[in-house]
Amino acid sequence: MNKDKLRQLLSDFRQERLSLEEVLKRLENLPYEDLGFANIDHHRALRRGFPEVVFCQNKTPEQVVEIISHMAPSQDVLATRVTPEIHKAVVAGFAHAEYNDVAKTIVIKQSSSGGTPTSRKPILVCSAGTADMPVAEEAAVTAEVMGNPVERLYDVGVAGIHRLLDNKAKMDAANILVVVAGMDGVLPTVVSGLVAKPVIAVPTSVGYGASFQGIAPLLTMLNACSPGIAVMNIDNGFGAGYFASLINSQA
Amino acid sequence: MNKDKLRQLLSDFRQERLSLEEVLKRLENLPYEDLGFANIDHHRALRRGFPEVVFCQNKTPEQVVEIISHMAPSQDVLATRVTPEIHKAVVAGFAHAEYNDVAKTIVIKQSSSGGTPTSRKPILVCSAGTADMPVAEEAAVTAEVMGNPVERLYDVGVAGIHRLLDNKAKMDAANILVVVAGMDGVLPTVVSGLVAKPVIAVPTSVGYGASFQGIAPLLTMLNACSPGIAVMNIDNGFGAGYFASLINSQA
Amino acid sequence: MNKDKLRQLLSDFRQERLSLEEVLKRLENLPYEDLGFANIDHHRALRRGFPEVVFCQNKTPEQVVEIISHMAPSQDVLATRVTPEIHKAVVAGFAHAEYNDVAKTIVIKQSSSGGTPTSRKPILVCSAGTADMPVAEEAAVTAEVMGNPVERLYDVGVAGIHRLLDNKAKMDAANILVVVAGMDGVLPTVVSGLVAKPVIAVPTSVGYGASFQGIAPLLTMLNACSPGIAVMNIDNGFGAGYFASLINSQA
Amino acid sequence: MNKDKLRQLLSDFRQERLSLEEVLKRLENLPYEDLGFANIDHHRALRRGFPEVVFCQNKTPEQVVEIISHMAPSQDVLATRVTPEIHKAVVAGFAHAEYNDVAKTIVIKQSSSGGTPTSRKPILVCSAGTADMPVAEEAAVTAEVMGNPVERLYDVGVAGIHRLLDNKAKMDAANILVVVAGMDGVLPTVVSGLVAKPVIAVPTSVGYGASFQGIAPLLTMLNACSPGIAVMNIDNGFGAGYFASLINSQA
Amino acid sequence: MNKDKLRQLLSDFRQERLSLEEVLKRLENLPYEDLGFANIDHHRALRRGFPEVVFCQNKTPEQVVEIISHMAPSQDVLATRVTPEIHKAVVAGFAHAEYNDVAKTIVIKQSSSGGTPTSRKPILVCSAGTADMPVAEEAAVTAEVMGNPVERLYDVGVAGIHRLLDNKAKMDAANILVVVAGMDGVLPTVVSGLVAKPVIAVPTSVGYGASFQGIAPLLTMLNACSPGIAVMNIDNGFGAGYFASLINSQA
Amino acid sequence: MNKDKLRQLLSDFRQERLSLEEVLKRLENLPYEDLGFANIDHHRALRRGFPEVVFCQNKTPEQVVEIISHMAPSQDVLATRVTPEIHKAVVAGFAHAEYNDVAKTIVIKQSSSGGTPTSRKPILVCSAGTADMPVAEEAAVTAEVMGNPVERLYDVGVAGIHRLLDNKAKMDAANILVVVAGMDGVLPTVVSGLVAKPVIAVPTSVGYGASFQGIAPLLTMLNACSPGIAVMNIDNGFGAGYFASLINSQA
Amino acid sequence: MNKDKLRQLLSDFRQERLSLEEVLKRLENLPYEDLGFANIDHHRALRRGFPEVVFCQNKTPEQVVEIISHMAPSQDVLATRVTPEIHKAVVAGFAHAEYNDVAKTIVIKQSSSGGTPTSRKPILVCSAGTADMPVAEEAAVTAEVMGNPVERLYDVGVAGIHRLLDNKAKMDAANILVVVAGMDGVLPTVVSGLVAKPVIAVPTSVGYGASFQGIAPLLTMLNACSPGIAVMNIDNGFGAGYFASLINSQA
Amino acid sequence: MNKDKLRQLLSDFRQERLSLEEVLKRLENLPYEDLGFANIDHHRALRRGFPEVVFCQNKTPEQVVEIISHMAPSQDVLATRVTPEIHKAVVAGFAHAEYNDVAKTIVIKQSSSGGTPTSRKPILVCSAGTADMPVAEEAAVTAEVMGNPVERLYDVGVAGIHRLLDNKAKMDAANILVVVAGMDGVLPTVVSGLVAKPVIAVPTSVGYGASFQGIAPLLTMLNACSPGIAVMNIDNGFGAGYFASLINSQA
Repeated sequence: MNKDKLRQLLSDFRQERLSLEEVLKRLENLPYEDLGFANIDHHRALRRGFPEVVFCQNKTPEQVVEIISHMAPSQDVLATRVTPEIHKAVVAGFAHAEYNDVAKTIVIKQSSSGGTPTSRKPILVCSAGTADMPVAEEAAVTAEVMGNPVERLYDVGVAGIHRLLDNKAKMDAANILVVVAGMDGVLPTVVSGLVAKPVIAVPTSVGYGASFQGIAPLLTMLNACSPGIAVMNIDNGFGAGYFASLINSQA
Repeated sequence: MNKDKLRQLLSDFRQERLSLEEVLKRLENLPYEDLGFANIDHHRALRRGFPEVVFCQNKTPEQVVEIISHMAPSQDVLATRVTPEIHKAVVAGFAHAEYNDVAKTIVIKQSSSGGTPTSRKPILVCSAGTADMPVAEEAAVTAEVMGNPVERLYDVGVAGIHRLLDNKAKMDAANILVVVAGMDGVLPTVVSGLVAKPVIAVPTSVGYGASFQGIAPLLTMLNACSPGIAVMNIDNGFGAGYFASLINSQA
Repeated sequence: MNKDKLRQLLSDFRQERLSLEEVLKRLENLPYEDLGFANIDHHRALRRGFPEVVFCQNKTPEQVVEIISHMAPSQDVLATRVTPEIHKAVVAGFAHAEYNDVAKTIVIKQSSSGGTPTSRKPILVCSAGTADMPVAEEAAVTAEVMGNPVERLYDVGVAGIHRLLDNKAKMDAANILVVVAGMDGVLPTVVSGLVAKPVIAVPTSVGYGASFQGIAPLLTMLNACSPGIAVMNIDNGFGAGYFASLINSQA
Repeated sequence: MNKDKLRQLLSDFRQERLSLEEVLKRLENLPYEDLGFANIDHHRALRRGFPEVVFCQNKTPEQVVEIISHMAPSQDVLATRVTPEIHKAVVAGFAHAEYNDVAKTIVIKQSSSGGTPTSRKPILVCSAGTADMPVAEEAAVTAEVMGNPVERLYDVGVAGIHRLLDNKAKMDAANILVVVAGMDGVLPTVVSGLVAKPVIAVPTSVGYGASFQGIAPLLTMLNACSPGIAVMNIDNGFGAGYFASLINSQA
Repeated sequence: MNKDKLRQLLSDFRQERLSLEEVLKRLENLPYEDLGFANIDHHRALRRGFPEVVFCQNKTPEQVVEIISHMAPSQDVLATRVTPEIHKAVVAGFAHAEYNDVAKTIVIKQSSSGGTPTSRKPILVCSAGTADMPVAEEAAVTAEVMGNPVERLYDVGVAGIHRLLDNKAKMDAANILVVVAGMDGVLPTVVSGLVAKPVIAVPTSVGYGASFQGIAPLLTMLNACSPGIAVMNIDNGFGAGYFASLINSQA
Repeated sequence: MNKDKLRQLLSDFRQERLSLEEVLKRLENLPYEDLGFANIDHHRALRRGFPEVVFCQNKTPEQVVEIISHMAPSQDVLATRVTPEIHKAVVAGFAHAEYNDVAKTIVIKQSSSGGTPTSRKPILVCSAGTADMPVAEEAAVTAEVMGNPVERLYDVGVAGIHRLLDNKAKMDAANILVVVAGMDGVLPTVVSGLVAKPVIAVPTSVGYGASFQGIAPLLTMLNACSPGIAVMNIDNGFGAGYFASLINSQA
Repeated sequence: MNKDKLRQLLSDFRQERLSLEEVLKRLENLPYEDLGFANIDHHRALRRGFPEVVFCQNKTPEQVVEIISHMAPSQDVLATRVTPEIHKAVVAGFAHAEYNDVAKTIVIKQSSSGGTPTSRKPILVCSAGTADMPVAEEAAVTAEVMGNPVERLYDVGVAGIHRLLDNKAKMDAANILVVVAGMDGVLPTVVSGLVAKPVIAVPTSVGYGASFQGIAPLLTMLNACSPGIAVMNIDNGFGAGYFASLINSQA
Repeated sequence: MNKDKLRQLLSDFRQERLSLEEVLKRLENLPYEDLGFANIDHHRALRRGFPEVVFCQNKTPEQVVEIISHMAPSQDVLATRVTPEIHKAVVAGFAHAEYNDVAKTIVIKQSSSGGTPTSRKPILVCSAGTADMPVAEEAAVTAEVMGNPVERLYDVGVAGIHRLLDNKAKMDAANILVVVAGMDGVLPTVVSGLVAKPVIAVPTSVGYGASFQGIAPLLTMLNACSPGIAVMNIDNGFGAGYFASLINSQA
């Protein structure tokens, strides 16, 4: 099966012109591609609702470029943890790669996947401090590329709680909240006490001393005395955006 | 405002005969009751979609009975971590208290809240081993009492992976999966690799040695290499059931 | 120096009829008593503003009774972490021993030290949950026995944040706040964001799973993003009451 | 409200020509400024007794300069954890910025806030070793900028205990002691055994091997067998100076 | 005993022309060589089945070259954790040194040890992700240099479990499996659930946040709920290859 | 398929009268039995070489008896971590259950599986101290029930190293060594330095203080500077016996 | 060799009538006795200066009695961590067993070893609190039974540092100091700052909260900023007494 | 008192021409010098048997040079953890500074302190691996500068135990053994099992993975099952040399 066909097939599937079963049958002989150092999983877009994401940490620029070159023709691509070297290499090879300087992400959209008019409700991404923004942005970019409207509410830590209370309306308007915080990791608990929405809590490694590279906020969030909170790995903005999108697409 | 009125009010709200704003206005003078050792939060049922839950650990039977006696006339009640002493005291005082021997929960339903016909899709609760059942059942009971159909799939640990694969249909039918595992905590990752649904992972303190009372499965789940997983505190079946219900009610 | 003289001396000192230097000179030959297994430090009442406290954990009832019998004639006595066996033994030997069932403390007051009219402002002791009360009460009793008016505000955890906001006046009226919380330990941060008063934060071992017997709230409090918070050891209600009193006596 | 007015208002408040309530009313429409990446909290100076401090770690020089440019016209500014790059950028933009090379702090004073005659008693900052000086100085600078007389007593670790005993008079003259130590963290306990003053203990990350970047002295201080000690996060000199000032202003 | 004789002796031993006892007797006066900073253990090839391996971490290029120059004339040499500096120095000194760029190993074979026809069954080395390849390759190279046929199966993590299931035949053909994984460390459990072969699990330090430099996958593997798994130190590919070879040579 | 047939089938398979493929085909409709709380995995005996083991910890006597009653007719049974209550219940129900008082195991043999003449070489189980014997015996019993000759060498800790050296012959005669040690966990390293055999190291929770319930010996073994060692979970004697048998059956 | 001869031999050796080499030669055929569950090491008395000690934790009363019955005829015996059951069993079997109720030790002296006139200087055992006495006494009893004069100085914690300073003479008179402390573990550092003697520091598990069963004082002692301190395992009073005696016998 | 006099005084004291009491009296007015950032403790040479050591880590070259310039005229100087910058600065200022490249130490001897004929027995410093040499050398240099004969025995790790056994005579000749090891930290236990001498165990941060920068060998040594071992902080070669010398001078 050549790439044009594959692209057509996936496009048909996305627009619900083909059932999952039908597509799987046709793909039987191309489940994934073995690049030697990586197996690209074309099925996942079908099984999981979004293609494999390229997690760049610990990969060479050459490896990332080769992986993307097998994905980009037929799928939207999201690369995370992009280093300057990888950024440079990818931009050189893919004309419409969009780089987010804060989130350290690259997005390459299918030209045909343009408009994505969506009826989903917004996901709200909150962060406690300025230094938590890279993780928050990684979550926001991920949720956007997966087709969700995203609102942002940054630097609303609990030390000045009125900054948070003043934005109650923004919280009420969202379907799901991603709340990112380092140091004491208190923000998700407080947010969850204010709204009856699912809160996805993301601890960050921001802080010093007894924050222990994110252990302190991780434990705070796991022990949150307010129910309605689920927790991600430290600095896992991508995971939060992905999970939020998964929930939002159920709605 | 006496209790009958309060019950009527809440019932009207649930059946959507009154808006949230309306109810809040009427309740202005009764936000919570101060029992000295505990503040019962009647507003929460409105704000959060379900009344406060009685977490019995570290409470005396007398405290639990008194708290329930202020809640039960107007609200459904869920008590978790019920000890034998508390079980005895509550059953003595509340005729239709339902005790779940595995989950260690008590549920007291409003007589009027009977039928709860629901259009929600099921939540599937999976557990890796027999010993994880108390946590899994706590999640299941919580999701049920909050109005969700619940399916169970127990003892499907990865050591015999075909037991899991054989139940793919059950997983596909669910809207959300709660996956409970101790020891190595591997099950949520594997389940999440099989379905495009949100997986709520609950580590348990079941195990010995280097499981360190649940640290091992907790870390496994936080580091899950398959996206689509959010994590609860160790043994927090209630939190998983609550979060799953919150998502399911968004749908 | 016999005990009557010592009592008189200390009493004179407390009522500021004798300077510290004067008293120290007179006491030169009685700095402490060696009971073999314990050295009672009579000087400390002078140097530190309050006599040694009997920390009962890991002591036998016999040891506690003997220590108290050397202190009680001339000093107020505070015993903490009182077990049922020690409670029984002390009450049998000291007629006006006052036992606090929640704090697990015993106080034996000098008859002459009665009225303690004080011009100090109150210390407010807050706790997040019902289960944190033993630690909160230990702090409150300690602060009281050291001559401070004490207010209490219990079960005001962040999950229902309006319970806290409704008590802003109580917080503003206090000079110092002791804030006690287990599980996520979020309460001190939030309280500190609301008032410009020193907050003494006490983590408790209340919780389960990833609260790790108080490590989680301890880390939360050490990393509090709101300044104005100092932290005590896990479950150290006594230390918090003592430190609060020390500050309050500076005022 | 323009900046001149705001400055006048805050100045009036500081000199107690306006009550807190009055000022808050007038400020109703300017509680904080949203810079996109940071919310500057002008209210905090009122609510908390000192304006927000600029914690520079993880911020870019551009962000710090922009934040300061919104604060400096109307408030004293304290910036901590200043890197060489930030130092250079701030000095270029703000003529009378004072940089402390050991503490890594920048202070920008309002010209009108000059004399600050104070009747407060001194805060004594002690450190165990030469390498603990950056943290000790951060505490000292913070306390000074908040209007307290500060004494210093450095390199008085317990290995040569007579260096400490020889300075008893200095300790007795202080109202509050900030005691900074790395490695074994023993100094606060010993100091607290010598004086009846509140001791604010700050562990540092100085040491090697089993000091574990400050965990060892942190635990030592939390477990101090001498009461009258409260503990800060590892390396949190700022927090100690702030807390000490808060207490001292109660006096 | 000169080196030619030693070489002959060892060669005879390997080809089973001399018994172990015989060789040990002849070697009585040359058990190891003391280089001052290192004792080279010539006996080990006899006692343990393979000569000492040069672990380069924390050694200088000069030390490594000197050690190898005492080993290479009479034995096969394996050097691990080779840095670029050491690589350069060794290649300069030893003409047929073979460097593996991914594994960071150097192998120097005896010219006479060429063919090594072997009847051993293959060892299969699996890895979960691209970033785990250095550790996997270290294991593979070690097993090869010790005389085993090695198969590789890389990037077969559980997130796309069909990539694993499709290679069941490869697994069934192997005698022993070395399974390398970072992050959640789930792969060995799943592999072990599929085959009745010994699985040697190697956690890697690949990951971020709560993977804690390999603690998370280490704990996962130690707690594996499927029996038949033994665990190596984090990143210890060499140890896994060595242990696998030891088992394989028993067969 | 009734139990007699199943028994016959398995027996044929064991005696190699039927190939694995053949048996799997016949069993297609009976892969496992669902008891509600447990799925018994009859396939495992085929796939893995030994039936599922009943891990009794956290199971009720009733659950264990029911599980065994479904296994015992057609398979050998091994139950580990047997409590006194479970022991009593099983012995009551199964006449020829053999209980090992030190290992806390129960073995129920098929009458037909009697002789098990084996050509395997012995597995040697060593332990460092008397207190490590329960774990060592669990390993020994497991290896025996899986068809291996087992030798024991107990209380040969390194403090008296000649006790170990005197048994060199016993070590040389074994094919594989299981080495069990608590406290400092030094024994496996020393043993591995003496023999060219695979060493399976099992840390135990025996010890006090800084042994931290087995963490100390676990780390010692993972870091063993002698290659040829693979590590089990703390106290996992069963796993060691199982893994040793798996290796031994490869030989 | 029968027991009388062995006793004579050991006695001759102790009184230096026989050289070590001589004795070892005679003992060639009786290095240790194998009791099945324990190997008694008769050589150790010669090699190490004192016979094996019976560490009773995790041993049954029967095992302890049997071990002692093989040691007592020819050697002094020291048993530590004696439980009430073991105490009862040993006293029943050995007439002149001396039990120390605080140290939980049993000593059985050879009748002939009576006087032990010694020219050694005293070992001083200090403890910080009453609750540390069991560990301190274990050290003291061990040092005594190994032939050292022992002084005790208990309850001299740093909170009342003058109690310590007043005993400077006692410290100066000792050759070696064993210093035992729980909680903050500060005492050894302070003592070591006062005397130029070797200090053997023993952390205890006494404390609560962040003392983490002895981790806090262990770390304090390892990081002691005063040189001249070596550290024992948590609660290892025996080890401290043994090590102190070893040093003292060098003098 | 000028420096010549001080030098004379100390020299007299060392040669025992003056008693300690006498010297202390004469020094009454010069106990230490305050350099602002450091207090040099001239008394310590008297009280502790050796002058303060300059621990260079975290000090600037300027600070080190200034401290040494106040010590060197009258005392032997030992500086540890010398960085290249400090090395350069000190050599420039002090002509006969001796730098040890492996130990990273500088020693400056008093010209008069030349011969130091000593009757002390040797201290033996052993290390497990080549990479442990810096710590071992720091111990050796420290012991030498304090007047002890020192023997070295390096790279005798347990993996090749015969290298250790062959050096039994060297061990027997020493009075005290310092044993340095990273990774599994097994060497001190084995050495202690071979000789009846005090063993001072020093864990190093050498290793990778689960050695956790020295935690693994630290725990191994604390739990050593052979008595006669005391433990130092990770990488604390200086402390080991100092402690060994302190013991040796008691002899």
